[in-house]
Amino acid sequence: MQLPRFERVVVVGVGLIGGSVALAVRERGLARTVIGISRSPQSVDRLLELGVVDEATTNAREALAKADLVVVCSPVGAAVEAVLAGLRDAPEHALVTDAASTKSGLINQIYAEHPRGGDRYLGAHPLAGDHRSGPEWARADLFVGATTVVTPVPQTAPMTSDAISGFWGALGSRVLSLTPAEHDTRLARTSHLPHVVAAALAAATSEEDLLLAATGWADTTRVAAGSAALWRDILMANAPATAQAIANLQMQLTEWSQAIQNADAQRIEQLLEDGKRRRDALGS
Amino acid sequence: MQLPRFERVVVVGVGLIGGSVALAVRERGLARTVIGISRSPQSVDRLLELGVVDEATTNAREALAKADLVVVCSPVGAAVEAVLAGLRDAPEHALVTDAASTKSGLINQIYAEHPRGGDRYLGAHPLAGDHRSGPEWARADLFVGATTVVTPVPQTAPMTSDAISGFWGALGSRVLSLTPAEHDTRLARTSHLPHVVAAALAAATSEEDLLLAATGWADTTRVAAGSAALWRDILMANAPATAQAIANLQMQLTEWSQAIQNADAQRIEQLLEDGKRRRDALGS
Repeated sequence: MQLPRFERVVVVGVGLIGGSVALAVRERGLARTVIGISRSPQSVDRLLELGVVDEATTNAREALAKADLVVVCSPVGAAVEAVLAGLRDAPEHALVTDAASTKSGLINQIYAEHPRGGDRYLGAHPLAGDHRSGPEWARADLFVGATTVVTPVPQTAPMTSDAISGFWGALGSRVLSLTPAEHDTRLARTSHLPHVVAAALAAATSEEDLLLAATGWADTTRVAAGSAALWRDILMANAPATAQAIANLQMQLTEWSQAIQNADAQRIEQLLEDGKRRRDALGS
Repeated sequence: MQLPRFERVVVVGVGLIGGSVALAVRERGLARTVIGISRSPQSVDRLLELGVVDEATTNAREALAKADLVVVCSPVGAAVEAVLAGLRDAPEHALVTDAASTKSGLINQIYAEHPRGGDRYLGAHPLAGDHRSGPEWARADLFVGATTVVTPVPQTAPMTSDAISGFWGALGSRVLSLTPAEHDTRLARTSHLPHVVAAALAAATSEEDLLLAATGWADTTRVAAGSAALWRDILMANAPATAQAIANLQMQLTEWSQAIQNADAQRIEQLLEDGKRRRDALGS
């Protein structure tokens, strides 16, 4: 397969994900120049110091005007505005994609403003990350072996879809195509619910009990260290599916509780085996 | 502080925990000889091959007869029998401790058989481990920086308590003294509940959805890979406290669900902040 190549890739929001996109593009030779857009002069300096991008600027309009591909890696709460700016300020030939964690609401808003957005835009969500944030944790191999979901809609132009899917694939990820709604429903179960559970477990632990927390607690609650503002926006943007996933888990927990209270050894073991089998299927 | 020293330490059940006790005792020079008791000739060979113990045998009675300290690292379901065997077959001067994950039921059963068990026995639970099991994962530093809970009762002789607490401390752990009931209530929250939640989350994930599982899912469900039989026994042995902890979490989840369905951004962020603050207090 021929690698997609761009003269200039502009990354909007250069944190862990955006920084990793930039590093991967550069390491894999997918662009001549990678330009990062940041919100403050301090973070521009920081990006150049870290060597994550070739150029960095706070002047979004000027940078977007030079783009052949715009990759929006802003958090969910800022992603719509950034995609719209990309469609408005980048040249007519430039493609636009994003990496936001929820898709339906964002894509509806984009098409409401740009009924022809599908000519140039394809939504994406690379399922890669870390509980740490910031460009200092960026890695060129963050996407290797990860899945990137792309979310075409009927309006998406096939050539745009191919080019942008090819781009995410060229960063090392497996590309999986889902509708925006299907993405949101399934991510509620595999990502948003685990975050809620981790945070609820962590919050329910008293300071005194923390002394008794070992690796099990540490693993199970790890993602709760993620940014509260970022996750507030994700949960707000995917509210119905997340609430449904919580309700399903509560039913499961009721079953566990009954088996435990009834001292039903066989049922408890069955429940544990079901969990173990699914967990073992993923690997560590 | 003078290190506790023993001529012969006998470890009953040489898996991850027992193997790590054996390695730590040897590395720290706490005994002249460490003898491991295993159930099969194959595992005896394996232990000697791994170099975890100085001697290994399937003949529990013969090994216990030589012990100055017996450390029972059998799983919860087998620990009572092993402690009772230690009290019966080891010499009168020998001390006995265990590493089982639940304490009240076990200790009640021990005192029912041995009203004077407190002269020689002190229950313990080192909060160290791994989702992997088996002596091949044993490490001499497994207990370094971990907490070991010891669970004295009114019948425990102070000298016995001091010697056995000193032993767990000499392996590198911080020793914390709790009543058996307090241990069980608090471990239900910090260990047994996280396991239930991890297994329930994992089991609720369809095979298809596994493709969409990233690091958040992987961390949050990691402990579900633990042995189902082992955890069945733990949950059975600590049923009331675990059921209570599940009920508390369900109430929390209802609060999350309401905040999400009401699109109450402020409340969602508050809940996330509460979780993050507690998680950050532990470190990664």
